[in-house]
Amino acid sequence: MRGAVLYGPRDVRFEERDEPRISKPTDAVIRIAAACVCGSDLWPYRGIQPVDQPTAFGHEYCGVVEEVGSSVTKVKPGQFVVGSFFASDNTCPICQAGYQSSCVQREIVLGAQAGRLRVPLADGTLVATPGMPSEDLIPSLLAASDVLGTGWFAADAANVKPGGTAVVVGDGAVGLLAVLSAKQMGAGRIIAMSRHQARQKLAREFGATEIVTERGDAGVARIKELTAGLGAESVLECVGTQESMMQAIRAARPGGHVSYVGVPHGVQLDGAGLFFAHVHLHGGPAPVRQYLPHLIDLIWNRKINPGKVFDLTLPIEQVAEGYRAMDERRAIKALLRPEARP
Amino acid sequence: MRGAVLYGPRDVRFEERDEPRISKPTDAVIRIAAACVCGSDLWPYRGIQPVDQPTAFGHEYCGVVEEVGSSVTKVKPGQFVVGSFFASDNTCPICQAGYQSSCVQREIVLGAQAGRLRVPLADGTLVATPGMPSEDLIPSLLAASDVLGTGWFAADAANVKPGGTAVVVGDGAVGLLAVLSAKQMGAGRIIAMSRHQARQKLAREFGATEIVTERGDAGVARIKELTAGLGAESVLECVGTQESMMQAIRAARPGGHVSYVGVPHGVQLDGAGLFFAHVHLHGGPAPVRQYLPHLIDLIWNRKINPGKVFDLTLPIEQVAEGYRAMDERRAIKALLRPEARP
Repeated sequence: MRGAVLYGPRDVRFEERDEPRISKPTDAVIRIAAACVCGSDLWPYRGIQPVDQPTAFGHEYCGVVEEVGSSVTKVKPGQFVVGSFFASDNTCPICQAGYQSSCVQREIVLGAQAGRLRVPLADGTLVATPGMPSEDLIPSLLAASDVLGTGWFAADAANVKPGGTAVVVGDGAVGLLAVLSAKQMGAGRIIAMSRHQARQKLAREFGATEIVTERGDAGVARIKELTAGLGAESVLECVGTQESMMQAIRAARPGGHVSYVGVPHGVQLDGAGLFFAHVHLHGGPAPVRQYLPHLIDLIWNRKINPGKVFDLTLPIEQVAEGYRAMDERRAIKALLRPEARP
Repeated sequence: MRGAVLYGPRDVRFEERDEPRISKPTDAVIRIAAACVCGSDLWPYRGIQPVDQPTAFGHEYCGVVEEVGSSVTKVKPGQFVVGSFFASDNTCPICQAGYQSSCVQREIVLGAQAGRLRVPLADGTLVATPGMPSEDLIPSLLAASDVLGTGWFAADAANVKPGGTAVVVGDGAVGLLAVLSAKQMGAGRIIAMSRHQARQKLAREFGATEIVTERGDAGVARIKELTAGLGAESVLECVGTQESMMQAIRAARPGGHVSYVGVPHGVQLDGAGLFFAHVHLHGGPAPVRQYLPHLIDLIWNRKINPGKVFDLTLPIEQVAEGYRAMDERRAIKALLRPEARP
């Protein structure tokens, strides 16, 4: 089987890898229907996060179960399933509280940019769709695996409420789907911070009511201006840099909620500054598993179309071009079609 | 009138000051029934927070209204009132959301370690008791002004729930009253982190079910041990140092809530660390005004006795000894009796 392997900065190769196998009784092996490149893959791709050794990449996936371990009872071969980047047992107290991405047994899932994938803790991790999806639903089901689930967590963690005002910092796929999520949760105003025309357009399609192109101090001033000088009730930080984090915190009103869902890189928060900002702060690896049943339902019934974030589709052997296009911001998100699909 | 003035590190003087007067139509002047020294006063007292010029000190107060400005309608001369350290209009959107300590019109109240005090925005700031309190209720009503309200916010911001587990970091007056607050909110287990016997005893009286004497790594390990390896659902940080903040964050389970209510001094939070801790973080200046009616009611009906945190009572002219006793941890909290009381 061939799959994507990251060797170092800007060095992604599509090459022969070991065939995934059931190694524990709780595993499943799935045949990938579609994979993709994640914004978070760009940190190691750009060399900002070091890669010590050649690493199989890709952690977003959906596809058909081929084989399950002897103790797997909740999914079976032939079912179409969606999972997420952390495998979880979905039974421990942390999972039960809705934080599956910090499950006591959690395991990172890696290597999804390939034809087949081993998924640990299959019973807890995978959610089956009601049947075999039609072709047009596949991009959206793939989005549910990470970027949609992460955008949904951003909206949930920022306490987006019906009629409230939500500001989204970041116009990557997660930011755009955070807009969609805030819309689904009934936000009355959704202000997307973006200076990129194609992304602004998609943000509006997903439910943004206003666009702010300014950043930093000017961006914060503009949000204050739009919110009677107070700042927003909910601010969704979907980037992970010092600048975006401070922009998010400063755009929130005292007592407001700031969520952050991209792994922070080099972010330092001053305790006293945060204290007087008086905000709620919540974030971390999105517990996508918590939301999957609901998200699959919304997609299956065509209430939402998150798959629109994929504006580039490539055969998987061109995975390196997918990384390049996202790195250069030529594409919002690249979908990869496996060589032999289910 | 004489009052306490901080001149610099460890230099508190009790000296003649201008008599407080109504300077705006929204002001009130009250005669102080009792004042006290706050743990937060120790930062400038110790020179950790610089004092540029001689400053009238004290921001906790209760007493009898003597005079009100022309636009004050909600309190009147002769009423016994409790206020807090930030004056607030209690009508702006931030106040209405329960964040009066970030009111758009907020003003710091200072100079309460004296016989009389000017309180700005009296209608929004002051809450009258049902009648003149008996002598024994005065320490508790004074506690409501800051330390109890702050401990209550710590429990509220840490999402303490009936039956849940709360850990309190810090055994100062705020930490002890955070224990009392968690108890009132129905926490099933309250773990107080303290290595000071008299404070442990009071923590138990207030509702602590367990005491942990370890700190830092060992303290975190002990909390994990007591919570099936997971950490606590609610952790209340009532100190404000880097060590206590990290201890609090690390003692919480993923998805748990960490509150912090003491002004952080030199605290820096690593974004990535916070992200993977997966906690909710909320704190800031306690919106005591939000809680005052309820707290006064609990005190008036003798459901709680937060005044127990005052283990030293001094005539106000000995205010410098009050600072010394708290600085040296000889006293939990010093109550100051004005020269001429209402």
